[in-house]
Amino acid sequence: MTARVDASCGSISGKMMGKLYGVGLGPGDPDLMTLRAARLIGAARVVAYPALAGGESFARSIAADLIAAEAREIVMDVPMTVDRAPAQAAYDKGAAEIAAALEAGEDVVCLCEGDPFFYGSFMYVFARLSDRFEVEVVPGVTSVSACAARAGRPLVARNERLTVLPGPLPEAELRDRIGGAEAVAIMKVGRHMGKIRGVFADLGLLDRAVYVARVGLPDEVVCPLAEAPEAAPYFSMILMNKGDDPWL
Amino acid sequence: MTARVDASCGSISGKMMGKLYGVGLGPGDPDLMTLRAARLIGAARVVAYPALAGGESFARSIAADLIAAEAREIVMDVPMTVDRAPAQAAYDKGAAEIAAALEAGEDVVCLCEGDPFFYGSFMYVFARLSDRFEVEVVPGVTSVSACAARAGRPLVARNERLTVLPGPLPEAELRDRIGGAEAVAIMKVGRHMGKIRGVFADLGLLDRAVYVARVGLPDEVVCPLAEAPEAAPYFSMILMNKGDDPWL
Repeated sequence: MTARVDASCGSISGKMMGKLYGVGLGPGDPDLMTLRAARLIGAARVVAYPALAGGESFARSIAADLIAAEAREIVMDVPMTVDRAPAQAAYDKGAAEIAAALEAGEDVVCLCEGDPFFYGSFMYVFARLSDRFEVEVVPGVTSVSACAARAGRPLVARNERLTVLPGPLPEAELRDRIGGAEAVAIMKVGRHMGKIRGVFADLGLLDRAVYVARVGLPDEVVCPLAEAPEAAPYFSMILMNKGDDPWL
Repeated sequence: MTARVDASCGSISGKMMGKLYGVGLGPGDPDLMTLRAARLIGAARVVAYPALAGGESFARSIAADLIAAEAREIVMDVPMTVDRAPAQAAYDKGAAEIAAALEAGEDVVCLCEGDPFFYGSFMYVFARLSDRFEVEVVPGVTSVSACAARAGRPLVARNERLTVLPGPLPEAELRDRIGGAEAVAIMKVGRHMGKIRGVFADLGLLDRAVYVARVGLPDEVVCPLAEAPEAAPYFSMILMNKGDDPWL
């Protein structure tokens, strides 16, 4: 961990504080959790995770079979809004609950879909608590790696460059960045499918791109981008590599 | 898997063929293997992996505690040369040995450092065998995710873009791509440290970059890029994000 994190370990007035774990769960299939993640979750007395406000938690569903029945659960109800203030408030509240547990000497395992520092929800907790508490981040398999594996499509080899782009970016920027890239992964396709597919078509790259939705889950879809449904779920991705046989 | 892989499953003259597994091991700490990787390796009767010609295999060392004593091991001695022909020949030979096992009805677990399709050695085996045999690729934690976790440095949040660049790229290209990127991970720093650090300094980004070498191993190094040793190992990385508080 960073120096600033190390400096915060230890005690307040002689009492040991708990340690915060930011645990990546991988893309959704519980089998793609790391050994370390599984062991930490199984031993946790306090587990924290985000949930869609009023709805279910994808993170909790991945780890469900490992969470002890007696574990205390801190749920952060995060609204999905374009305005960031409501989500910020939810993480403020969640971080305060987590901090209280840490100050009482309890370790807290915070669950995070995918990899915590790759578009992960744990970054919001980390930003609020890492200057005050010891933190260990357990990396996870990203959806990019999982989608490539399921599609049978190598991402990058040798000295190729990979560009990772979120689907909500403006069309002109997507066009520039996809056009100038060798290999591309586009995250969070969702309702941006029409715009993104249009860019690939305009660039003459439609036949090089593959679409993967809900990777590793029972309703997974893998198909050429040209055949992908117009209504893509939030957890969907497009992969493209311009090389003819890039891994040879 | 892809359609071409599915089409190859099954039998030749009524005899079942084995299945090829390309298993990502993560960045080096055996604890960062996935549950699926650990189970497949532990059950494997035939294990294949690359080794530096005449030397040790980093992949095998990560999985060593899980490989059964009675497992047969196929070693691919891959020379580290700029000329690609000798490595190609080594993978041709290894793929032929693996194919013979698969044709005899044996499953083969091919070990791969990191993630198989993210600069992974398994791509060379996949390219040679995926049109003839059933293949399952098990994704792994990348060194990018692991380095960010150890450095306590979030990679990308919200709608940020991530650019992954190999260190051997020419200086002018590194300058252009780092200058135009929001968040950057530079792989395989090794003997290119001087060139890369110079680019960061010229761009005024030296104080934003962190260096991580041999992540998760006993001799791991994490420090500001400015303080990194001139002689960096091959397995080293530089991470940089231009955002001031990108994850909030």
